[in-house]
Amino acid sequence: MNSSKNKVMVLDVGGTNIRVAAIMTDGTIVSRYKCPTNAAKGPEKVIKGLVKAIKTTISRAKLHDGDIKGICLSIAGSVDNINGIVNSSPHLPGWQDVPLREIIEDALELKTEILNDASAAALGEHRFGAGRDIKNMVHITIGTGIGGGIIINNELYLGANGIAGEFGHMSVVANGLKCSCGNKGCWELYASGSAIEREARRIVKSEAESYILTLAEGNIDGITGRTVARAADLKDRSAVKIIENTAYYFGVGLAGIINIFNPEIIVVGGGLSSLGEKLLRPARKVVKERAFSLPTRTVKIVRSQLKDNAGLLGAAVYMYDS
Amino acid sequence: MNSSKNKVMVLDVGGTNIRVAAIMTDGTIVSRYKCPTNAAKGPEKVIKGLVKAIKTTISRAKLHDGDIKGICLSIAGSVDNINGIVNSSPHLPGWQDVPLREIIEDALELKTEILNDASAAALGEHRFGAGRDIKNMVHITIGTGIGGGIIINNELYLGANGIAGEFGHMSVVANGLKCSCGNKGCWELYASGSAIEREARRIVKSEAESYILTLAEGNIDGITGRTVARAADLKDRSAVKIIENTAYYFGVGLAGIINIFNPEIIVVGGGLSSLGEKLLRPARKVVKERAFSLPTRTVKIVRSQLKDNAGLLGAAVYMYDS
Repeated sequence: MNSSKNKVMVLDVGGTNIRVAAIMTDGTIVSRYKCPTNAAKGPEKVIKGLVKAIKTTISRAKLHDGDIKGICLSIAGSVDNINGIVNSSPHLPGWQDVPLREIIEDALELKTEILNDASAAALGEHRFGAGRDIKNMVHITIGTGIGGGIIINNELYLGANGIAGEFGHMSVVANGLKCSCGNKGCWELYASGSAIEREARRIVKSEAESYILTLAEGNIDGITGRTVARAADLKDRSAVKIIENTAYYFGVGLAGIINIFNPEIIVVGGGLSSLGEKLLRPARKVVKERAFSLPTRTVKIVRSQLKDNAGLLGAAVYMYDS
Repeated sequence: MNSSKNKVMVLDVGGTNIRVAAIMTDGTIVSRYKCPTNAAKGPEKVIKGLVKAIKTTISRAKLHDGDIKGICLSIAGSVDNINGIVNSSPHLPGWQDVPLREIIEDALELKTEILNDASAAALGEHRFGAGRDIKNMVHITIGTGIGGGIIINNELYLGANGIAGEFGHMSVVANGLKCSCGNKGCWELYASGSAIEREARRIVKSEAESYILTLAEGNIDGITGRTVARAADLKDRSAVKIIENTAYYFGVGLAGIINIFNPEIIVVGGGLSSLGEKLLRPARKVVKERAFSLPTRTVKIVRSQLKDNAGLLGAAVYMYDS
């Protein structure tokens, strides 16, 4: 590596915001920038925004092109990192087979990589967070849905097309709820923020009184995972039950992952991981009841250490290692 | 490698028979031997039988100790290959935490390894069978139950304790049938020889006439997967339905595996793989309906090429590579 090229530009392209950072080899974040994604305006406008956001960050941080090793964009969805194509993204309407890597490379004349956001988070936690010095690790991002990233023999495993790690779309209820992915009974339909919201909205309709609804100011559509978590803190019975049920299904999926991967560690990140032990303790109990005993004794199930920065740092690692 | 040590002794320790072979580096089987396991007599007797079987094979093949690089035993069950301990085996009653590697090494003074049989089969198919030159492969052994082996970056992945690949014990029906492993709704309870037998026995009880029962000579307990397959060949409607149902659940599990591993190939071995396209065609259809499209277009789902020899050859590869 040219020693002057000691920074990478990384982007976390979310449905609401674009987050940009300039990151050093050791994981130090030297500059940050955030702006709206404007996802509804379609791919062309979003990409213009991405280019502008990178340029802004570079200029604010007073970086020169010679300082920058490259760019890595972390995006939710089906990301073909090998060919640099975003096949689709749940948060970005209208994105179908967008050759994002080439577009960004052409616009900025900097080496570019793209990566699924859950894979990026796994790489970040492995290098700088809860998975340091761990050989085999599974990272689960539990938020609106469930994403995953796999570290095998100290390396990110991406599979043949860069799609590996879609744990959220393994069926845990073979003939269960229909998923937008085309599958039925997907894990994320039973253990995620969306699952919590769906159950809460269903339950409050039949309840005379409910903290959940009160906290949502009487607006059923305004109920979020956070509302339910807060109601559970206030000992609302329905809210407690919903969280317990989510943790149960989370454990069911983790048990399968443990039997399949026999990993040293499972790191849990994403919005719902802020539930902390309220999610992890009952999930570990389910794992203990359901998974094989030797791998259960071996595995540690822990929260992400890097939280929101896992994806940005992982994207930087991916660029540095590429 | 000392060039004279050009053979390994491999054993497939089944519930009924011990199969032994002497195998060359290129996979040529130079000698074979088979004898009863006598599993019911407990670990001590079985191990005596193993040692005797190895000695017999060595002497029949006129091998000298200097010709033999080592021994590898392939065994169904929870096999801790790192410490050389058989934690438990479904076919070997009384085996609990047996330090088999040390016992065999002491008895024969030859380097010894032990390996789960499904992992061995994966390794065999990868080196000599359907998975040659494939970087990322999943091998599924579908027989009485479901076992699995994982090849990542051209190497067998065994996890932290050597237990990885227990695909049969991921829940596909979260609150489903109770499994002897302690889990509920395990994949193998819905897609395996045992599942076929269980369903057939249940169904024939309520049927006035049934090819299945006729083929089992009127003995419900005598119904096996093979009986049902033969009845399906004769267009027995119940038998056809049972096979279809098994293939459906087999596809449900495969879809999850494809979303998780995004592998180049899934190789299907084990007794039930003899159903061939009767199992694989409907399973591929389910995969197409349920798994992500890019990895589904990429993956090939094929039958084992090595059949019964996959495990023996894989055990040889494991010894040669160790």
